[in-house]
Amino acid sequence: MQRHFDEELNLLKENLLRMAALAESRVRSCIDALVSRDEEIAKKVIESDEQINNMQMEVDETCLKLIALHQPTAIDLRFLTMTMKISDELERIGDLAVNIAECSQKLITEPLLKRLIDIPRMARLAENMVKSSIDAFVRWDAELAKTVCENDNEVDGLKDQILRELLTYMMEDQKTITRAIELILVSRHLERIADHATNIAEDVIYMVKGEDIRHHAMEKIK
Amino acid sequence: MQRHFDEELNLLKENLLRMAALAESRVRSCIDALVSRDEEIAKKVIESDEQINNMQMEVDETCLKLIALHQPTAIDLRFLTMTMKISDELERIGDLAVNIAECSQKLITEPLLKRLIDIPRMARLAENMVKSSIDAFVRWDAELAKTVCENDNEVDGLKDQILRELLTYMMEDQKTITRAIELILVSRHLERIADHATNIAEDVIYMVKGEDIRHHAMEKIK
Repeated sequence: MQRHFDEELNLLKENLLRMAALAESRVRSCIDALVSRDEEIAKKVIESDEQINNMQMEVDETCLKLIALHQPTAIDLRFLTMTMKISDELERIGDLAVNIAECSQKLITEPLLKRLIDIPRMARLAENMVKSSIDAFVRWDAELAKTVCENDNEVDGLKDQILRELLTYMMEDQKTITRAIELILVSRHLERIADHATNIAEDVIYMVKGEDIRHHAMEKIK
Repeated sequence: MQRHFDEELNLLKENLLRMAALAESRVRSCIDALVSRDEEIAKKVIESDEQINNMQMEVDETCLKLIALHQPTAIDLRFLTMTMKISDELERIGDLAVNIAECSQKLITEPLLKRLIDIPRMARLAENMVKSSIDAFVRWDAELAKTVCENDNEVDGLKDQILRELLTYMMEDQKTITRAIELILVSRHLERIADHATNIAEDVIYMVKGEDIRHHAMEKIK
């Protein structure tokens, strides 16, 4: 029974990793669409959202089944409820990639406002945070989770910098306003993706260290 | 044992309702702060975030304890894992109220851009959606949950209308740009609050109807 349960847990971990890889690739693609002004890539991100949604429901059902059938110990129970929570976060990351892809579709039809530097940088950071937070979870690695929380400060810094720069454009030339607002929204969606990764990382630290840092993580790090 | 378990479930429901009431009052207060330009109210929303965070952890722990101790049936198990998820949504609604309160603090120090009509309307809608989604959950009421999903379309409509109107202000007078952007961000935070309520409502429909509408709710309603 126990061996069977362990096998099922491993399978679940693999599914979660696959789901995470998909979410990361969506984040990369929606920014690719924006940078390379490629309508096809944007469309693909929007159309393939279903796939992550389906994976989420599958992970959810598997967790419920394992809890109901195996009456897991405290630590396995926490792992399973946390897996449900993480699959939720990943599904929302997929939604945010769709939002960004929609912004990209609008921006592609208009002249380029400026060469994009900070937004792709922010996207790479956010994508890495997603990857590291899931790695930290499956490896039970609080140190790695901490780096995710630290990176969130950098993402927030970039978000502020992007806003300041775009404000300058808008002030100077009102023809840039609608495009600048789309770019601000893209940066906010990226910020939320980073927030989801930070949520996961804070939970990992909480589980590993046994103390609840979820609402104090940032204070401690600073 | 069963009676004891039922009592604990009822206690949990009460706690969740209390948490929801707190989240609703935060949404109301952060918009109050904005409309009445009251710095004190904004500060209170920001300072009292801790309270919702603590309630969330408490609800989380109670659910885990109940699952571990009572090995609940499939339906009770789903109720408990869903309660954990809902407390998560409520905690994030609290965070969004803090974000809005911070926008309000910035806006209060500057001259009034325009009399606010659509934003308070959007806030009332979002607040009601939060209330109804939780009521739908504790009463197991799929019809009520459906009205929440329907209201989400109205919120999205208001969001677009607010953006269009504020774009006009920005185009006409660049001195309005920073304030207009803060108001756009407020409307996006409200949209997310409504999204959290919709997530809860979709889960309720899923549980009651036994079919997964989480990712198809909108299509069906339209």
